[in-house]
Amino acid sequence: MPARYRALVEYDGAPFCGFQRQLEHPSIQGELEQAILAVTGQIVTVLGAGRTDSGVHALGQVIAFDVSWEHGPDTLLRALNANLPREIAVNQLVVTDEGFHPRYDAKRRAYEYHVYNQPVRSPLRHQRSWHVARPLDMVRMNRAAQALIGLHDFATFGQPPTGHNTVREIFRAHWDRQDDLLVFYIEANAFLFRMVRSLVGTMKEVGEGSWTVNAFEDALLACDRQRTGQTAPPQGLFLVSVKYD
Amino acid sequence: MPARYRALVEYDGAPFCGFQRQLEHPSIQGELEQAILAVTGQIVTVLGAGRTDSGVHALGQVIAFDVSWEHGPDTLLRALNANLPREIAVNQLVVTDEGFHPRYDAKRRAYEYHVYNQPVRSPLRHQRSWHVARPLDMVRMNRAAQALIGLHDFATFGQPPTGHNTVREIFRAHWDRQDDLLVFYIEANAFLFRMVRSLVGTMKEVGEGSWTVNAFEDALLACDRQRTGQTAPPQGLFLVSVKYD
Repeated sequence: MPARYRALVEYDGAPFCGFQRQLEHPSIQGELEQAILAVTGQIVTVLGAGRTDSGVHALGQVIAFDVSWEHGPDTLLRALNANLPREIAVNQLVVTDEGFHPRYDAKRRAYEYHVYNQPVRSPLRHQRSWHVARPLDMVRMNRAAQALIGLHDFATFGQPPTGHNTVREIFRAHWDRQDDLLVFYIEANAFLFRMVRSLVGTMKEVGEGSWTVNAFEDALLACDRQRTGQTAPPQGLFLVSVKYD
Repeated sequence: MPARYRALVEYDGAPFCGFQRQLEHPSIQGELEQAILAVTGQIVTVLGAGRTDSGVHALGQVIAFDVSWEHGPDTLLRALNANLPREIAVNQLVVTDEGFHPRYDAKRRAYEYHVYNQPVRSPLRHQRSWHVARPLDMVRMNRAAQALIGLHDFATFGQPPTGHNTVREIFRAHWDRQDDLLVFYIEANAFLFRMVRSLVGTMKEVGEGSWTVNAFEDALLACDRQRTGQTAPPQGLFLVSVKYD
């Protein structure tokens, strides 16, 4: 009898075309499905909470899949990790309700974006952050972030995955300094495609002074994809956690 | 008129055969010399404070070289960084005394070694740490580290770069927990080849219980390279800083 399993997945997004399976390119979903096939002999579809883009990392992606397995979740966890490339690891694997869906059941998602804001680029950070050489004003960036909180139409900052609804609710959005990094933390009920990277790229323009905070707020109210600023590169973005009831 | 320049260098050691120039493989020294040649047209020898091994990283390697340059150190810094691969960056470039030698004049070097001590490996840390799955007892590891402080013959834990003197003075040596990592910090007048990695690999055996603290102390007193434990892998090691009078 197959059961539904649920797990957390951490990955380094650099070598992958994103979460979603593609024919010609390695993906997180494809690598997970291959590991499950190698371990159990079963062809399964892995469901994910968020379809992260190429190059985007995850600390706490949530997945689910159905397999028949007699030897307990801990043995399955170790066998999967032994069959996955070192850029992907599965954690906290458990049996869950057969109706659990990591994307449809998710109530909140949290992302972090890391900016390395120093005149000289950092070789030890380049794979995990965006290097911005001009000094950024975090007070201005936090005023822009403040404008995001609540229920808004985010059509300016991304495309909806399905249908036309571009309204999302933001619960938290703020910038913090962590050692040498500026870290943007955002938590919402859901996100549009490219939304965090469009927000960060545009707030970076607020931070360096080429956009005013008012221009940022006006762009949000315009609900027009043409009104976005820059798009931040993928290697600074991390899917941190997904929350359920 | 050539002047002697001094700088800090940060690098990701993964793609290099180490600091020291080799004919067949890319090295930190070789890349720096190539960038200086490209920018100034001058063939120079870059001196470094520490000859880090293949795969070892640096936050604050110190280098020196002699060039004729008319446009000021800030311009030279930017031009060098534009000509270096993204795994190497030069910081804090200044003109210094013509007699300054980064290795002979150094009074203290500090290294950090990062251990990721969790049952499941971490894809976002694998390039910058050693994954040890079995739980390590940091109290025992700190008792071993304590035994290192002071003037000792470290023949058990490394080879001397030149001559036969294997006596070194350790000023600080301790383990700390930083988020998910166990970090070993060590500061000494100088180090033998492989010394930090041999110490860390052997202390890891103390931490997991296969060596006693007494056995570690006895191995140190034996002054016999055969008596070392494991050698920790290079990707967890960072040359943090070099100090001068």
